[in-house]
Amino acid sequence: MINKIKETRLLHGGDYNPDQWLDYPEILKDDVRLMKLSKTNTFTLGIFAWSALEPKEGEFQFEWLDEVFSNIQEIGGKVILATPSGARPAWLSNKYPEVLRTTENRMKMHHGGRHNHCFSAPIYREKVGIINRKLAERYGNHPALLMWHISNEYGGDCHCELCQENFRSWLQTKYANLENVNKAWWGPFWSHTYSDWSQIESPSSIGENAVHGLNLDWKRFVTAQTIDFYQQEIVPLREMTPDIPITTNFMADTHDLIPFQSLNYSEFAKHVDIVSWDCYPAWHNDWEETQDLAVKVGFINDLYRSLKKQPFLIMECTPSGVNWHDVNKAKRPGMHLLSSMQFIAHGSDSVLYFQWRKSRGSSEKFHGAVVDHDNSEHNRVFKDVANVGDALEKIAEVKNSMKHAKVAILYDWENNWALNDAQGFSNQTKQYPQTLQKHYKSFWKKDISVDIVTPEQDLSQYSLVIAPMLYMMPEEMMKKLREYVEAGGTLVSSYISGLVNETDLTYLSGWPKDLQAIFGIDVKETDTLYPKDRNAIVFKDKVYEVRDYCSIFENKQAQALANYEMDFYKGQPAVVKNQLGKGTAYYIGARTEQAFLDDFYDELIKQLSVGENMGILHEEGVSIQIRESEDDKYYFVMNFTERVQKIKAVNEYIDLLSERVLAGEAFMKPYEVFVLKMKK
Amino acid sequence: MINKIKETRLLHGGDYNPDQWLDYPEILKDDVRLMKLSKTNTFTLGIFAWSALEPKEGEFQFEWLDEVFSNIQEIGGKVILATPSGARPAWLSNKYPEVLRTTENRMKMHHGGRHNHCFSAPIYREKVGIINRKLAERYGNHPALLMWHISNEYGGDCHCELCQENFRSWLQTKYANLENVNKAWWGPFWSHTYSDWSQIESPSSIGENAVHGLNLDWKRFVTAQTIDFYQQEIVPLREMTPDIPITTNFMADTHDLIPFQSLNYSEFAKHVDIVSWDCYPAWHNDWEETQDLAVKVGFINDLYRSLKKQPFLIMECTPSGVNWHDVNKAKRPGMHLLSSMQFIAHGSDSVLYFQWRKSRGSSEKFHGAVVDHDNSEHNRVFKDVANVGDALEKIAEVKNSMKHAKVAILYDWENNWALNDAQGFSNQTKQYPQTLQKHYKSFWKKDISVDIVTPEQDLSQYSLVIAPMLYMMPEEMMKKLREYVEAGGTLVSSYISGLVNETDLTYLSGWPKDLQAIFGIDVKETDTLYPKDRNAIVFKDKVYEVRDYCSIFENKQAQALANYEMDFYKGQPAVVKNQLGKGTAYYIGARTEQAFLDDFYDELIKQLSVGENMGILHEEGVSIQIRESEDDKYYFVMNFTERVQKIKAVNEYIDLLSERVLAGEAFMKPYEVFVLKMKK
Amino acid sequence: MINKIKETRLLHGGDYNPDQWLDYPEILKDDVRLMKLSKTNTFTLGIFAWSALEPKEGEFQFEWLDEVFSNIQEIGGKVILATPSGARPAWLSNKYPEVLRTTENRMKMHHGGRHNHCFSAPIYREKVGIINRKLAERYGNHPALLMWHISNEYGGDCHCELCQENFRSWLQTKYANLENVNKAWWGPFWSHTYSDWSQIESPSSIGENAVHGLNLDWKRFVTAQTIDFYQQEIVPLREMTPDIPITTNFMADTHDLIPFQSLNYSEFAKHVDIVSWDCYPAWHNDWEETQDLAVKVGFINDLYRSLKKQPFLIMECTPSGVNWHDVNKAKRPGMHLLSSMQFIAHGSDSVLYFQWRKSRGSSEKFHGAVVDHDNSEHNRVFKDVANVGDALEKIAEVKNSMKHAKVAILYDWENNWALNDAQGFSNQTKQYPQTLQKHYKSFWKKDISVDIVTPEQDLSQYSLVIAPMLYMMPEEMMKKLREYVEAGGTLVSSYISGLVNETDLTYLSGWPKDLQAIFGIDVKETDTLYPKDRNAIVFKDKVYEVRDYCSIFENKQAQALANYEMDFYKGQPAVVKNQLGKGTAYYIGARTEQAFLDDFYDELIKQLSVGENMGILHEEGVSIQIRESEDDKYYFVMNFTERVQKIKAVNEYIDLLSERVLAGEAFMKPYEVFVLKMKK
Ligand SMILES: [Zn+2]
Ligand SMILES: [Zn+2]
Ligand SMILES: [Zn+2]
Repeated sequence: MINKIKETRLLHGGDYNPDQWLDYPEILKDDVRLMKLSKTNTFTLGIFAWSALEPKEGEFQFEWLDEVFSNIQEIGGKVILATPSGARPAWLSNKYPEVLRTTENRMKMHHGGRHNHCFSAPIYREKVGIINRKLAERYGNHPALLMWHISNEYGGDCHCELCQENFRSWLQTKYANLENVNKAWWGPFWSHTYSDWSQIESPSSIGENAVHGLNLDWKRFVTAQTIDFYQQEIVPLREMTPDIPITTNFMADTHDLIPFQSLNYSEFAKHVDIVSWDCYPAWHNDWEETQDLAVKVGFINDLYRSLKKQPFLIMECTPSGVNWHDVNKAKRPGMHLLSSMQFIAHGSDSVLYFQWRKSRGSSEKFHGAVVDHDNSEHNRVFKDVANVGDALEKIAEVKNSMKHAKVAILYDWENNWALNDAQGFSNQTKQYPQTLQKHYKSFWKKDISVDIVTPEQDLSQYSLVIAPMLYMMPEEMMKKLREYVEAGGTLVSSYISGLVNETDLTYLSGWPKDLQAIFGIDVKETDTLYPKDRNAIVFKDKVYEVRDYCSIFENKQAQALANYEMDFYKGQPAVVKNQLGKGTAYYIGARTEQAFLDDFYDELIKQLSVGENMGILHEEGVSIQIRESEDDKYYFVMNFTERVQKIKAVNEYIDLLSERVLAGEAFMKPYEVFVLKMKK
Repeated sequence: MINKIKETRLLHGGDYNPDQWLDYPEILKDDVRLMKLSKTNTFTLGIFAWSALEPKEGEFQFEWLDEVFSNIQEIGGKVILATPSGARPAWLSNKYPEVLRTTENRMKMHHGGRHNHCFSAPIYREKVGIINRKLAERYGNHPALLMWHISNEYGGDCHCELCQENFRSWLQTKYANLENVNKAWWGPFWSHTYSDWSQIESPSSIGENAVHGLNLDWKRFVTAQTIDFYQQEIVPLREMTPDIPITTNFMADTHDLIPFQSLNYSEFAKHVDIVSWDCYPAWHNDWEETQDLAVKVGFINDLYRSLKKQPFLIMECTPSGVNWHDVNKAKRPGMHLLSSMQFIAHGSDSVLYFQWRKSRGSSEKFHGAVVDHDNSEHNRVFKDVANVGDALEKIAEVKNSMKHAKVAILYDWENNWALNDAQGFSNQTKQYPQTLQKHYKSFWKKDISVDIVTPEQDLSQYSLVIAPMLYMMPEEMMKKLREYVEAGGTLVSSYISGLVNETDLTYLSGWPKDLQAIFGIDVKETDTLYPKDRNAIVFKDKVYEVRDYCSIFENKQAQALANYEMDFYKGQPAVVKNQLGKGTAYYIGARTEQAFLDDFYDELIKQLSVGENMGILHEEGVSIQIRESEDDKYYFVMNFTERVQKIKAVNEYIDLLSERVLAGEAFMKPYEVFVLKMKK
Repeated sequence: MINKIKETRLLHGGDYNPDQWLDYPEILKDDVRLMKLSKTNTFTLGIFAWSALEPKEGEFQFEWLDEVFSNIQEIGGKVILATPSGARPAWLSNKYPEVLRTTENRMKMHHGGRHNHCFSAPIYREKVGIINRKLAERYGNHPALLMWHISNEYGGDCHCELCQENFRSWLQTKYANLENVNKAWWGPFWSHTYSDWSQIESPSSIGENAVHGLNLDWKRFVTAQTIDFYQQEIVPLREMTPDIPITTNFMADTHDLIPFQSLNYSEFAKHVDIVSWDCYPAWHNDWEETQDLAVKVGFINDLYRSLKKQPFLIMECTPSGVNWHDVNKAKRPGMHLLSSMQFIAHGSDSVLYFQWRKSRGSSEKFHGAVVDHDNSEHNRVFKDVANVGDALEKIAEVKNSMKHAKVAILYDWENNWALNDAQGFSNQTKQYPQTLQKHYKSFWKKDISVDIVTPEQDLSQYSLVIAPMLYMMPEEMMKKLREYVEAGGTLVSSYISGLVNETDLTYLSGWPKDLQAIFGIDVKETDTLYPKDRNAIVFKDKVYEVRDYCSIFENKQAQALANYEMDFYKGQPAVVKNQLGKGTAYYIGARTEQAFLDDFYDELIKQLSVGENMGILHEEGVSIQIRESEDDKYYFVMNFTERVQKIKAVNEYIDLLSERVLAGEAFMKPYEVFVLKMKK
């Protein structure tokens, strides 16, 4: 079931916690006034409000929430209503300690924090069910209700006995019998054969932690169990509000901005109506250039957009700094508009903030917010927000427009789990998602749209599929890639691919035959280098530095594009090209510097015509992303540098933000952004 | 009740543990001989002697201690007698396991170590009471008894159920009802509202750890509970020996030599007759210059002296190296005399050592001591000690003389707790005490006496009060500072001040009005920089580097003294001066390099005449500290460099150490020290 | 009882785990074929096969093992049969949880991992006894059975109540009464006097951890208890197979390749018939030169060889890379032969691998093996192995030949335990085994054989004994060294020697008289330097850098060879020479750079004629090691550099590997090795 949001505006607003301010009526009044001034229209209510909604077991207080609903409705605003399961009241932990998690080293947690309930405890499911139903009953038909926001930032795992039992049941369903488990997990190694289901326990630093099949299945179970909990949460909502879309807010792992690792969102995304997520890049940091960070932000937005291939929502971001980075630096002038437009450019239909108002106490009181402790509309951040509100109104027509990509990069959550858990290679340098981001960068620099797809997705629509470092590659994936190439596709893969199947068992009899057919080579060794080691390859008379990994392979029928310059495999091929059926496959055997990827893909881009001639010339650091409606194209031209940039427009465009025509030479200030509209 | 020590000599001696040597009668005899040779006069007995005093429950053995008392008395020495609660016998832990601590993650400790008893356990209080009473009965009237030394280096906390109950009682007394707790701790955040007292638990890494109000109150409770235990310890002593002064030895946090963080000594100091503490600087280290470390030593001695504004005691220091630093380097020739004189110069009336004699076994056997394992008076350290003993005799007249400061730096223990716990800014760079030390350094370099005062102390006596980084500033503190300025005082404060009240709730409606009135500005933002980021300010045509923090503020009525050179607030004021009533206030908005502080305070020093013309000119690295009796002044001139230093004396002085007259040019050897006497 | 291996070939083969492949009959068949091709002859079976041998309690399955025995026998191979105690089946942990270890912080482990059974649990001993007896019954007379391999890589400790009780019994046997314990452990310190045996507990981070005597005795107990378990394991084997030799595989601590620290192998070696061990150097790393690592490999092989002064076995090594280093780099061409020959050169009679075949799943599947996942004889590693097999056949005659050394370096396991536990000096720089390796290097560079002996071994056969950093030196050791010198020996010792006795109690009355007599000096201080501190010494007009430690001593009668250049002990002696009786002793007071040791020992080598004129000249990086049979000498000439090396042979030699005559100038390729034979 897919429900769309019933709202024509781009959403602007964010998490609003009036429950913290019930003793401060003048603050609640100011909120309404400031909402209007800030050009915000959407507010997420009720996250963490359980204590306010049910201060004692079975005693509910909704009056305060009724009033907030009314206030928002009166100013034409909309509500995203959260279920409160992300943090429970103290009375609940106290009376029902089974809701508390058990850590991996089998310590029973005490009450405190948030996001830490057992996903199995029946009583927790029951209590959440009751309050969710109450919320749906009371607000399900409220005209301001736009969407459900289930819990908050699901994550983590629990190792209590209830969860152990659920894990065993899940395994029984998957494997039918213990013999299959022992085979899949390579049981006889270290005598780890199970002879009774009760012997299976979740991985633990004080128990079993080296059985990769177990580790992998535990992670899969945690995703399944979290989704199971989520599905139980939404039962009353689906029943009573069948037309209200449902989401839950996804995350990224910071500070490197790689996909969240604790849950497989490609599974979870199937169960939400709209993907939404919380994005907190560390702008203006001191370890990378702004454009490098912009690439990472682009990558992960494209991944989460591609999960459902629909516009998604930024559910949380900050109008200023956060308070939980190592260093919490405020956004410089211009950055808030630029970074907000970047979200829209990559497919978001919202800019929502954590948080509307800084709380007065506790751990997030210094997290950036629309309204600061000064309760004033006159400070820099508030004005930046109002400015973004203004911009979102000007570009409202981009809502629901799509991105169309001819290039796909494959990201597989489970592959990263398995690879990171693998004992081998070097833990310092595996870096699977970071490697994908480097491939992605070659396209970002050239303004080419990219989908970041997951293993189940269809590849046939893409001219180019990039799938490096697929350490764990089930046989179906090989078949899928082979069919894709045979049918005319172009595929790029790399070192550390095709080593194990879906339970982390290695392939026997050498590199899989399907892969040999695709790439025309037989991979013999993966040389793992020390951090200071270097090799090099030569590609079209240019030398590129190589580090970390070098595949050594036998070239069976491929065309060598680049050879190694050093070490005992000097002169042997490092990069090859192979024809198969109507298609072509490339294997990049070594971890090269960025320049190689840029030059390598530059040719492919030309050959495959995956770029689009937008008629706008620019230097490095300016990025253009496209959204496309039925009739129009929208070019988001973004200056991710601290320099004035000269660009050259071959055609005439209307900049929706400045409402001026752009043609010929133009200058972009640092962090400036244009949203250019073109009829198709 | 304030009791003074009845002793005219400066105390010289230290911790003496004959209980370790009862099987070695010849060693005990040598001790007496060596005490005389080393010119020591005071010995602390009984720390950790519980097993020797009460080898089995209720069976006491005092004969060995009687004899040690006699021996010391015979050579004219004095005894500081310790209560033995710092480490309990194994029989006690075994029979009464409730005396063992529970860690913050709720693990019950086993027997071992020291300084680790539960402060709540009634049986421990009872057993300590019994043995303390026995000691007072037996030695209370002994002529050699000089002072009580309660336990040893109190610290740490216990999370057992008894302590949880005491914490809840303490909270009930403080807050009266749960509603007040929920308000003070901003309960509704993350649904953390308590509905029953029993739900409150101490902070834990496996429970609640992000409620700042809870964390802060827990720290306050730990201080209160520790003092409560201490007060129970001294009941029999006050009863039986009302005239014997009582102390307990305070500590610093190494290796940076900042105030001890686990306890609020400004509270504890109210309950001791004399402040004493244990000082272990890492002289001759490889990360700072000797004078930089001397500044830190000076700062912390001035803080502990200012707690009671009386001469204090160095209860422990080492004549050589310690054994628990990362690197345990011996003092170079001259350093022991210099560093001993530095203690006296800052107000100590003692140089006491841990330890008289190196133990033969266990973990402190390589800690520096007067008597080494060679049991000889012929080694370098022993001679250094005797040399200090000689010097202390020569300068005995400085005993009870005072320091008089016109400058105060405000240090607030609770402010550092709250600031370090705050999620915001950057954890790497908060550095509140270290920042105070940098301000202090500007005065140290110019030989100006400084008191380091705590929030309750009177400010009216000071011409200049320096109070930077007062993140947590209760309203009374603002009033106090405002009154101080209005009455004619000069106040300096800085970035990150005035953000939260005493329960870590932020002030609403902008920077507090009282602070705006004092400084003539309204602080808008605190920009937190990454470690490699730099800005700069210009002050009197000189450029100074800025890092870490930059306040951005609206200048309402102040005079800008320095402006920012870079970033989006370029040209805006960074340092201002404001007149209020009869006084003046300065706000330093950025974290500057030391040179700025030096130049900034140089002017203030001149304007306010807070310096004293001692008539002795010297270069950097030489420091002069003054003590003052009714009739005389004593200038401690100390060379904290590895160079010969030329100084110039305008007047004639008598050097009490060399017993020579100093006038005109003179040379100081590396680490040399003069104690110059001047009639007032 | 000493049993010798009944086998004339050098052993080549390794750990073979057919129990992982019982479902893959074609793999088992391939194994036999590949064994022949790889020129391997010996296979270790049954490590971790408990689940396969006894899938349910009391139900045994030996048929599969019978067949493997037959297969190996058919190709003329031999079996080393392991007892399976290194990892238990899940049913055993489940039914008898007392077999699970308790950690030092008193957490009960869960089932999982390996090498983690309680050494005390009676039921575990019983179950191991039963299966060991079954194995002996079934295979004891099998003609292929060569040796027993008891368990696997014994290590670690258990803190359960059973182990606590055994520890107390062990202490009662050692100390007779508690008074002796309290004296030996310096009980009164911190009131740590025990009044009842039940008060004694093993060291714990949540209990007692600072009593060095306790820590030391716990480590001794762990060694004793492990050996006790081992001895129980071998009861049925000795009974039923009295002529089959028994070993267990020892380890080193990586990555620095220092002796394994958890067990005192000098004790354990007394109980095995043959020493065997597992050696995993990180060849081709990026932090040291190949020859530096070769020195460490040489050192530790010489230590393990010297434990019994017999040829030993390399029980595990890798033909390629491992999978558990930080970076797992493959051996470069030539390195496998070179490093295999190095083992033989230092006294090994085997090159055995972990592992025959890479497993398909679980944590070691990427560990180097003879047979890779490709199941092929055509890859580089397999060919390297066959090449080593070939070489081992060519040099088979060196089997049982010995090494004869006139130089001994003393390594004392307990000394390193005590020194590392000592609170004092600097934890960053103690580095006792690493320091020995530096002394060793001076001899390695000059191709001089060295025994690394342990305290109980006879010294009289050596011309030169090197015993630096003997922090813990029982009085018997002093006597032994004194007698050795008086009888004409030459002894070298260094800073941090002779400080404590065997229970870590310091010597009183100064540096021990015996040591004063030996070295002619009285050590007064050990100056501990910060990492950036430097001093220097002058020896024969050359200046050598000094860091970390400088002894300061009074020269009583010695001859000063080198003096300090700096600091307060400038000009004082740093290195001395002393005559005592017919012998000479040297004391090196400071930690010098390698060049000093090289130059210092160069003279001693000449004076004492401890070198052997082999008539082969070479540059640095080439190493020659000698094995000697009754009639012949074998010179292993090894190029541990990445350069071609020119060597010059004064005599004529036969290179057993190339089967050519070597005479005059010759060139060695990088990593090349010659095995030159010379009639005596
Ligand atoms: Zn659970
Ligand atoms: Zn307690
Ligand atoms: Zn045990």
